[in-house]
Order: sequence, then structure tokens, then C-alpha cells
Amino acid sequence: MVIELINTGGELMLGRVLNTHQQWLCRQLADHGLVVTRQVAIPDEVTAITEAVREALGRADVILTTGGLGPTSDDLTRDGIARLLGCPLREDPAVVTHIQQYFTQRHRPQPASTLVQAQVPAGATVLMNAFGTAPGLVLEVPGGQFRPGTKPTWLVMLPGPPRELQPMFQNQVLPWLQTRLPSRPAYACLNLRTTGIGESQAEEKIRGPLQDLVDAGLVLGYCARVGEVDVRLEATGPGAAARVAQAAERVRAQLGEVIFATGEAALETVVVQELVARRQRLVLAESCTGGFLAHRITNVPGASAVFWAGLVTYDNAAKEQLLDVSAATLAEHGAVSEPVAREMAAGARERYGADYALSVTGIAGPGGGSEAKPIGTVFVGLAGPRGVSVTRHLNRFDRETFKWVTSQQALDRLRRELGSAAV
Amino acid sequence: MVIELINTGGELMLGRVLNTHQQWLCRQLADHGLVVTRQVAIPDEVTAITEAVREALGRADVILTTGGLGPTSDDLTRDGIARLLGCPLREDPAVVTHIQQYFTQRHRPQPASTLVQAQVPAGATVLMNAFGTAPGLVLEVPGGQFRPGTKPTWLVMLPGPPRELQPMFQNQVLPWLQTRLPSRPAYACLNLRTTGIGESQAEEKIRGPLQDLVDAGLVLGYCARVGEVDVRLEATGPGAAARVAQAAERVRAQLGEVIFATGEAALETVVVQELVARRQRLVLAESCTGGFLAHRITNVPGASAVFWAGLVTYDNAAKEQLLDVSAATLAEHGAVSEPVAREMAAGARERYGADYALSVTGIAGPGGGSEAKPIGTVFVGLAGPRGVSVTRHLNRFDRETFKWVTSQQALDRLRRELGSAAV
Repeated sequence: MVIELINTGGELMLGRVLNTHQQWLCRQLADHGLVVTRQVAIPDEVTAITEAVREALGRADVILTTGGLGPTSDDLTRDGIARLLGCPLREDPAVVTHIQQYFTQRHRPQPASTLVQAQVPAGATVLMNAFGTAPGLVLEVPGGQFRPGTKPTWLVMLPGPPRELQPMFQNQVLPWLQTRLPSRPAYACLNLRTTGIGESQAEEKIRGPLQDLVDAGLVLGYCARVGEVDVRLEATGPGAAARVAQAAERVRAQLGEVIFATGEAALETVVVQELVARRQRLVLAESCTGGFLAHRITNVPGASAVFWAGLVTYDNAAKEQLLDVSAATLAEHGAVSEPVAREMAAGARERYGADYALSVTGIAGPGGGSEAKPIGTVFVGLAGPRGVSVTRHLNRFDRETFKWVTSQQALDRLRRELGSAAV
Repeated sequence: MVIELINTGGELMLGRVLNTHQQWLCRQLADHGLVVTRQVAIPDEVTAITEAVREALGRADVILTTGGLGPTSDDLTRDGIARLLGCPLREDPAVVTHIQQYFTQRHRPQPASTLVQAQVPAGATVLMNAFGTAPGLVLEVPGGQFRPGTKPTWLVMLPGPPRELQPMFQNQVLPWLQTRLPSRPAYACLNLRTTGIGESQAEEKIRGPLQDLVDAGLVLGYCARVGEVDVRLEATGPGAAARVAQAAERVRAQLGEVIFATGEAALETVVVQELVARRQRLVLAESCTGGFLAHRITNVPGASAVFWAGLVTYDNAAKEQLLDVSAATLAEHGAVSEPVAREMAAGARERYGADYALSVTGIAGPGGGSEAKPIGTVFVGLAGPRGVSVTRHLNRFDRETFKWVTSQQALDRLRRELGSAAV
């Protein structure tokens, strides 16, 4: 099955934004064993859009387009494609109702221009937009339309906003695609998520033990970002599932507790689920992560059952006033120090009656480093029923990566303390 | 000048990585008034590469390719293009020396495979790689090579690693491009960032007043995400800057204080800069945003000068204990209510001696809604020298979007209170 992707958007061509649609859609398809063979980005211009679609027609079995279905003057995809294919646009009453309800429910006036989104090419299947107004559209284009002898193509048009495109693709397009796929050989895929080990270090440990399975067709993939390495195991054909399971067992034996999840779960999800199971209370005492740790914890549905509060104590006085860190410790050792991390965690746990308290203090940079404590120095404190302990790290990254890696180290400290390794 | 970009890489097609080359190169070119008209991503396969290049030849004045110049088995661009164009590969002695020196300087053994990178298509100009071994290559392809009557094309091949590609492009390709550019018409571009207005609502307001400028060639673009719409004004030709300035003046007159920045600044940056200028202190009292508001504020370098602390009071008891919200108010009105938002903001401001305190309480969902307070209900409180006020919002989104939109509303409340509209 040949799948091509066409992204429209002037902001892409000007380099104002990253093409997150490409990654997200390609990833979704790849996870179902479908690989996009060509992706094209073009500006919001009718000629560019129709030329790109015309080229792909007859070459691809499925063409996915993103963007250009909205109500403004640079939304030209629906119109351009309807004209290219000679499909007249007709108002779809169901879409009209959907758009009206969308605005009524939100108590917002409905701009007249929004109704243009109810104009649907004749013969198109409408994909209702659960999170916006512009419907997705599916057209079956007969073979040989522009070049003799070419195959028919499914043309799937998706709206541009990610929070509209993503659920529409997952809930409507993927199930639809799967019913139209030719029967494929068995396919199995398993993802093991690790933190605290580098990509080449992980590879060194598992390459040898997996070699015979790789020789027999196992596909071994790594997806590395700072502070997190996913090991992906794939197999196709008879016995695929058994081969992947066998490989997973060997990877677990080699990597042990650096594996925090099987599948796609985030580290914060693993931690929150373990606390929920134990009915234990967490308090966070952050400095250099500036609320990012609390943000990650509260991204997990159900976190409110275990997360009591987070204190983002940016100022030293806030550390004293909210966490009972002593002025003497701050004066003697500085805010970024082992003793302060210790007092932050212990203070938070005792004062707020938590089972566990995590603390973080560090130097994100760009300023503030010294010989003894260079930029990137971080102390992570953990206070729990078994006492208080502090680890020291050196995270030399840009500000956002610094916050990510530091929060990763803190969450992993707690995960290991809770003994919830996914092994 | 028509510029097309071709990115190669299996990891792109599998959605494992974002195509950062596209954004970076498009942005670099746009900043010099050059807009890429088409970008294509394809896997590391000779057929896909040569087909993409052949299509672009004769259509583009300049083709940029990224990746496929290295020493491993999936590096096929140099070879594929040389064969497509019938240019024999020859070993370039200067590149051989460069590669040898690269390894000698780093005291690392030189794998034999690295010498394949010294194979250069006949007639190519070599761009030495200051941060790696694979040289960039420039080929002038005569017109009419594959289709009669087509124009000549410059084919510029760049290595894939960003830290090699970026300096090579900036130090070698851009200067080279500029000497070869026909004298270009003037180009001007201005971005106006708004929050608190929808895309179609914005367009309704400015379309009429800008119509004569659009008729005269002004290009008007919108980039919308929930809670934020950018209006982009572009013009080319004589008087471009004046036309964009005139358009910007009219947009400002129509949209007024919903515009929070000219250029690319984030809302949190605008807020922090204004507080820094006034030497005022901010405290945050969050519930449903769970630390995300503090995270955004602390993403701004220099925030420590004005951000004293953030209290993420997820539990009701934490609201009482840390923000002096009264138990009676919580019992009578519930945690998600106007009075609680008011007491959170007022309590945070008074107790911690802040100039401004922002509070947020709401129902993110999926559970917890009622008839009177459906899921998505949010109260934003702002306490400042002029008193305390609360606004009510309905943000029905997935959890992450909910946090984003809510934080956007809270930051915008503060921005407007500070009077720092970018008008």
C-alpha cells in the first residue's frame, strides 16, 4: 500500500513552525505497519496544492492532506481539490448543524464565514470534527483520471489544528484504513522504555544476546532522546509475536530496572499509578524545574488522588517560608547544595504530612555557575518513610532540556524508591 | 527564484524524529527573502532520491538536499545523483586530506569506509565540512537535461547532522547563494501575535480594512492554535516595507489590545519583561493548571528577578494551608468557584507580599463536572494593587490543551492589567 502525505501551510515554508503533523501521522501509520513513501509540504496556494495532489494521484493508494479546510481566505484545499476533480461543492446540512451547535454550546457568536466549512465536494464522505468545525473529507478518485492506466486513490483531507486532526485520524481514519488494507502477514511490535542509560550503552548490552533473533528477522530499533531511550522490537511473519516476546525477555534480563514501562506509558504515569495503588501522598518542592515536575505529575489523570501540592520556591525566602529550609543552611551552602535539597525534601514531607517529597535545586544557566558548582549542577532530594537522600547530577543543556532531564531524574528516583520497575 | 528542498531519511518516514532541517533551512532562507516553494521528504532509497531530484530539476533554480552523504550503507544521495546526472565519481585529494586530519586531530582511528566521502562527482564544487567529514557538494545542472527547454538548476547537497549542516549552510551556501541571486525585489514580513480572538473573528475584522492592500499584492497569512492566532503580513516589490507597515497599522487599529507581541515573543515573555521593567513581584496560585503556569513563567530567562514562588494547591487542604482560603468558602461554593479563585489570589498576594498574584481553579475533566459547572469550567483570579477580580471561562479540551488555554487566559489577564499591549 503506497501512502503519501501532503502538508499545506505558508508557516511551514517560512520555517515558522515545525511540521509536527508529519512526525505524528508517520508514527501512527508506522505503528500499524504502514510506511509513508513520500511527504510533500507546499504553501497555501491553489496551484501548488492541486499540482501536488495531481502528481500523487495514480501513484499512491492513499493520499493524506493536512490543513486548508478552515474558514479563512488561506484555506484553499477543499476548494482547490473539488475543482481539480470536477466535484461541485454542496452544502451538507449535518455539517451546518454541527457548526451551529459548536458555537451555541460555547456561547460564542458564529461568524458567517464558518459556514463555508459545510461546503462538501459531491461524493465525499464527511468525517465529523469532534473538536472543531471543519470536517475531514474522504474522496475515492477513480483510476486513470489524469494518466491512463493508473490505479484509483483514496484522498483523505484532514483539518490542520493538531487537536482536531489527531482524534479524527485515530478514531475515524485509522479504523477506516484498516478495513481497506489487503490482508497482511502477522506483525508484532513491542516497545520497552528506559531511563538512566544511553543509546549506545543499551545497544552494547543487548546486541549480542539478540543477535540470533536479529539474524532470523527481528528488527531492533532505538528511539533516543536525552534522558530516555526506547527499545523497539518488531517481527513479521509466522511466529512474530513469539519472537518479539522472546526478545523482550532477553532485553529485560540485560537492562533490568532501567526499564520503566512496556508500551508507551510516560515515567510520570508509572509513578502516579504506583502511588495510587499504595494510597500514598506526594508533595513536590521545586526550584530550578520551576513547576515542570508538578506539570508532569498533573498531566496524569487521577493524579489528584495522590498529589497534595507542589511548592515552586524560586526565591530563597520562599524556601525558608514554605519548606522550613534554615537561613543558616542557605547562607552557608548556597541554595544549590546537598544540604538545601535535603532540607527542602524533609521540610516538605514533614510540614505537609506527605508520604514522599521530591525536591530539586540546581543551576539551569545561562548565568550562575562557579568552579565548584558549574552550570547544570542539580541536587535531587527524596524524603520518604525510609529517610532522606540526595543525588547530584550535571545537566548541561538548554533551559527546556535541562528541565526535562532534571524532572526525569527526580521522577526516576521516586520510581526506584517505590520499587515499581516494569521488569 | 524557485527553491525546493529534498530531505532524505528513513527515520523521517517512520515518524521517529521531527524534520528540524525543514524548519531551520526554510527559516534561514525566509529571513533572506527567499521562500521555499516545495519540500519533499523521502526514505534513503536510490529510486526515491533520484526520482525526487529529477522532478525538481528544471522546475527549481536551486535544489537543496539534506542527508545521505556519510559513510554508511544508507548514505545513497551522492552516488544516486552522480548516476542520475551521468557524472563519474572521482577521489578529491583535498577531501582525503581533510578526512585524515579530522581523525588525526581527534586521536581516533580512521575507519576505511570514511574515504568514500572523498568521492566527488566530476564538476562539483566541494564545500568543506568544518564539523565533520562529509563534504557538501554543489553541481550546476544544465537546462533541458530531462525535459526540453527547462532552465539550469543549482543542486546543493548538504550533510545530515544539524551541527554540520547549519554552519555549512550559513558560512558557505548562503554567501554563495547571495552572489548568484538575480537582483531581487524588496521583501518585507511582519508577524503580529494575538490571544483572546478566534481566527475567523480576526479575519472578519481586518479583511475589509486591508482589502486595497491585498489587491495591491499584500499577502495576509494566519497561523492559528487554540488560544493564539498569528497574523502575518508580507509584501514584495518596491515599497514593500511601507506597505507592510501600513497594513500593520490598520491591523493594530482593528484588533487593538488582543495583540500581545510584534515578532515572535511568547506571551509569558511579554509578561515577565513588563514585570522586570516595573521591578514587581509575582506569585502564582494554581490548581487545575498543575504547575504549567509556573513552568511557562520560569521558561523565560530572567524570571527569577520577579517570580517569587508558585503554589500548586491541588488538594483543598493545601488551598487553606498555603493560600488562606477559608474552609467555609470551600464548603459553601466548592473549590471551583468565583469566591475560591478570589481568595486564592488575594491570599497569595497578601501572605507572600507580592505585587500581583494570579490564581486558577477549574475542572480539567474527564470527571468532575456538573450542570452548573460543566467540565472545562475555569475561574481565573488576579490580585494586584487595584484590587481583586475574577473571570470565568469554559475550556472544553483534552488535558494538555486545557492547561495551555487556561494558562494563556491567566497570563493575558495579567498582561492586560499591566497595560503592556503591544499596540
